[in-house]
Amino acid sequence: MNTDYFNRRKTIRHYSDAEISDSTLSALLAKAAQAPTLGGMQLYSVIVTRDMEMKKKLAPCHFNQPMITNAPVVLTFCADFNRFNKWCTVSNAEPCYENFQSFIGAMLDVTIFAQQFNTIAEMEGLGCCYIGTTTYNAPEIAKVLSLPKMVIPIATLTVGYPENYEKEPKAERLPLEAIVHNECYNDYSAHSVRALYAEKETLDINKKYVAENGKQSLAQVFTDIRYNRQNNEYFSQVFFDFIASQGFKCPF
Amino acid sequence: MNTDYFNRRKTIRHYSDAEISDSTLSALLAKAAQAPTLGGMQLYSVIVTRDMEMKKKLAPCHFNQPMITNAPVVLTFCADFNRFNKWCTVSNAEPCYENFQSFIGAMLDVTIFAQQFNTIAEMEGLGCCYIGTTTYNAPEIAKVLSLPKMVIPIATLTVGYPENYEKEPKAERLPLEAIVHNECYNDYSAHSVRALYAEKETLDINKKYVAENGKQSLAQVFTDIRYNRQNNEYFSQVFFDFIASQGFKCPF
Repeated sequence: MNTDYFNRRKTIRHYSDAEISDSTLSALLAKAAQAPTLGGMQLYSVIVTRDMEMKKKLAPCHFNQPMITNAPVVLTFCADFNRFNKWCTVSNAEPCYENFQSFIGAMLDVTIFAQQFNTIAEMEGLGCCYIGTTTYNAPEIAKVLSLPKMVIPIATLTVGYPENYEKEPKAERLPLEAIVHNECYNDYSAHSVRALYAEKETLDINKKYVAENGKQSLAQVFTDIRYNRQNNEYFSQVFFDFIASQGFKCPF
Repeated sequence: MNTDYFNRRKTIRHYSDAEISDSTLSALLAKAAQAPTLGGMQLYSVIVTRDMEMKKKLAPCHFNQPMITNAPVVLTFCADFNRFNKWCTVSNAEPCYENFQSFIGAMLDVTIFAQQFNTIAEMEGLGCCYIGTTTYNAPEIAKVLSLPKMVIPIATLTVGYPENYEKEPKAERLPLEAIVHNECYNDYSAHSVRALYAEKETLDINKKYVAENGKQSLAQVFTDIRYNRQNNEYFSQVFFDFIASQGFKCPF
């Protein structure tokens, strides 16, 4: 099959009013569930949000990013050992998944499923956007969606038909040599890392971010504003405590 | 684009002798790198293993699963904040990513990239298999591949041309209603969970696993053998300590 499409794909943040039918969504999810899964266990669940009242409850969990209320469908992908554990219990098997490695396995599993859905939806003409704040406010999301123990929200996708596909920007990527290492990790020197990020830094959109935020470099936009120490450290503790309170304990 | 292919896809565990050229592999990886990425940060690296001596060093890290030495290419996908941090440092920006939330973000990022690669490679006629032991023996893998601090191996894919595509089994999946919840999480009763797993339990291949292992139920094959308490708890501590020693500390 030709895969040139993957060079052109882009994230869609603006959606038309067109609804996604239940049958369309189910067909996409069923295809996505054929993605690889750890030991065949399917350690995930997805919560479908269509109701506007529910979107309004989710929105503050995602710092009120407008895609949550503007998209016809919001999907919250959760690492889920609850269903598997219940199956063990009714099968005279003792579940033993209240630990960090099991959380990591389920997180891998649900992320693979979410990305397979993203790809299939895009290929079918829908547009999607990952909302990167799911693990920040996981405790609040869990409350809104009534998530039981052993279920952790990991990724959120807003899904809809693109309002104007052409107008959505195509994001830049680092040159391939930045991310590929042959046989062993080839660490970066100050010189090589500068060269790898040079093109990114010269893009108008990125120069605009630097200027708008009164910073001296694009990297400072990330460290001082977008992904800053205070948020990173605060939400680290919140998420770490949350996964333990949901049942995935570590250290013992 | 038609996506019916995704209903047919399967994991490929046996490979022909055909090599994958550098140009083919690079084209696949370049397409995969167009996958969504957290804040455009591309918090990942991939280590390409082709050398047989290196495969032999990796094999015990994966409990000597034969795909490691039989596949022409082994890809180790790593969560990577090392490159981003070095870029911050040369840009007069203070990196602030030595925490759990940053690890979680990079883990999401690399998993999305790995799955996009898996999909594109499959669509181009290659076969792939995730090796689910990467986070178990992460410290040993890091030594073999010379991974620096802030780099964590998360997923491994063996890649090659299928030896006999038709002969590879198509894995079963739970019914869609097992994994989809509308508006709120709809928890499972003993009755509903039995019904959802019933078909899986009646498959010949699963009955064979139960009989071969002298167990009373399929779930016991998972809890007592495949993903048992002793391994889960031991490798939880190993991985948790490893990510902290690589720089992702939590709690503070």
